Amino acid sequence: MSGPLVPGRLAVVGLGPGDACYLTAEAEAALAGAEALYGYAAYLDRVPVRQGQGRYASDNRAEGARAAAALRHAAEGASVAVVSGGDPGVFAMAAAVLEELAAGPESWRALDIKIVPGVTAMLAVAARVGAPLGHDFCALSLSDNLKPWELVERRLTAAASAGFVLALYNPISRARPWQLGRALELLRGLLPASTPVVFGRAVGRGDERVTLTTLAAADPESADMATLIIVGSRQTHVIARPGRAPLVYTSRSAEGASA
Amino acid sequence: MSGPLVPGRLAVVGLGPGDACYLTAEAEAALAGAEALYGYAAYLDRVPVRQGQGRYASDNRAEGARAAAALRHAAEGASVAVVSGGDPGVFAMAAAVLEELAAGPESWRALDIKIVPGVTAMLAVAARVGAPLGHDFCALSLSDNLKPWELVERRLTAAASAGFVLALYNPISRARPWQLGRALELLRGLLPASTPVVFGRAVGRGDERVTLTTLAAADPESADMATLIIVGSRQTHVIARPGRAPLVYTSRSAEGASA
Repeated sequence: MSGPLVPGRLAVVGLGPGDACYLTAEAEAALAGAEALYGYAAYLDRVPVRQGQGRYASDNRAEGARAAAALRHAAEGASVAVVSGGDPGVFAMAAAVLEELAAGPESWRALDIKIVPGVTAMLAVAARVGAPLGHDFCALSLSDNLKPWELVERRLTAAASAGFVLALYNPISRARPWQLGRALELLRGLLPASTPVVFGRAVGRGDERVTLTTLAAADPESADMATLIIVGSRQTHVIARPGRAPLVYTSRSAEGASA
Repeated sequence: MSGPLVPGRLAVVGLGPGDACYLTAEAEAALAGAEALYGYAAYLDRVPVRQGQGRYASDNRAEGARAAAALRHAAEGASVAVVSGGDPGVFAMAAAVLEELAAGPESWRALDIKIVPGVTAMLAVAARVGAPLGHDFCALSLSDNLKPWELVERRLTAAASAGFVLALYNPISRARPWQLGRALELLRGLLPASTPVVFGRAVGRGDERVTLTTLAAADPESADMATLIIVGSRQTHVIARPGRAPLVYTSRSAEGASA
């Protein structure tokens, strides 16, 4: 059996955070041009229904299976889009698709693969409070589903000790209830108690909640699966404003850096 | 003298990488609604001219002066937008504006400040080659204009040793000719020679150039001021494809992580 005459196409499309205002023109065009959409149900719900476009929703945790199904569909000659929240390249579907592609049949390598970037959660949360990612920073997943917890601790320690601001993805879930508390405890041993900490939940959605606290007061109970946490460095400052929410920024200059 | 009756507004707007396809709907609305635009001339040139909208171009290096001028203008009651390439919160204008605000007159704290996020360079470069930022990574400026070079080296060492992928901003300039070579030399002592390295220049522009190489072969001469460099980790893999550019991804799983 020979393959389709026209090689299939697969785009992994970043929707940005919860609101359509974050969608780029490129992402909109990629969604409009697809014959079939694959994605976690909550992300698919954010894409307007188009006549004749197939929609294949799957569970949040079924990333590998979803990626493989989308690749199989594209290999039939179809134009397929896998939708992803935020940016597909940051703790999202792009790596899952490429892992499946690498492990799959040789013929998948002939597919036209495109990754369409988007505004990832840490950029949207940072923007809501100012510019806490204004200087060197790390993005780190607290999930120990695919890496040992010891490695998470080693990376937290290395990054905080070297003066990076931290953006923590996947801070907590029902199956991972204690990891965030342990991470904050570890960071309290490395950074001043007054270090600014931002909890940014569901930015751009109706249930958005963004709060500013300190490392000493940061409460793991404030976070859920939809939360992105930013932990400042010694160069992260807070500007108090009468009648307005405070602004947080990390200064570009690190001459007084003690870390 | 009393201030204006309506507090001025200042938005710091991310244009994304070079092409308008990366602009978000929110950024487009913020640009359209401003009475005056401030920015580095090359970024301002990317914004369509609108009748009655003032345009104040300045030099790339005049970030502090530009931020202060925009704040002064907003403090007169105007609606001002400061434009920034990529995301304004990542090595760009948002932190510069907030540094000036923190140091400026108390009255500036009454201004309505908004940061409008965008697709930052590392996301666009990563998308062009696959998903090299698919797992834990750091964003680090190689500029030693505002921090000592020893701190850059300490951060490079900490991040690479702990297994983070690295996104290097501001890798080189006429005034900083040797720093990138020194950084690559340092990384060669920490990571395998085969580690994938991506040079991404001017993504989305007519003169875009994205190349994949290895840490052993990476040549500082391939970079200029408009280049973003991604250095992989031990979990970064390359998928060869007959007749197509190879794909690069960092696997989500780090079980075999030796770093």
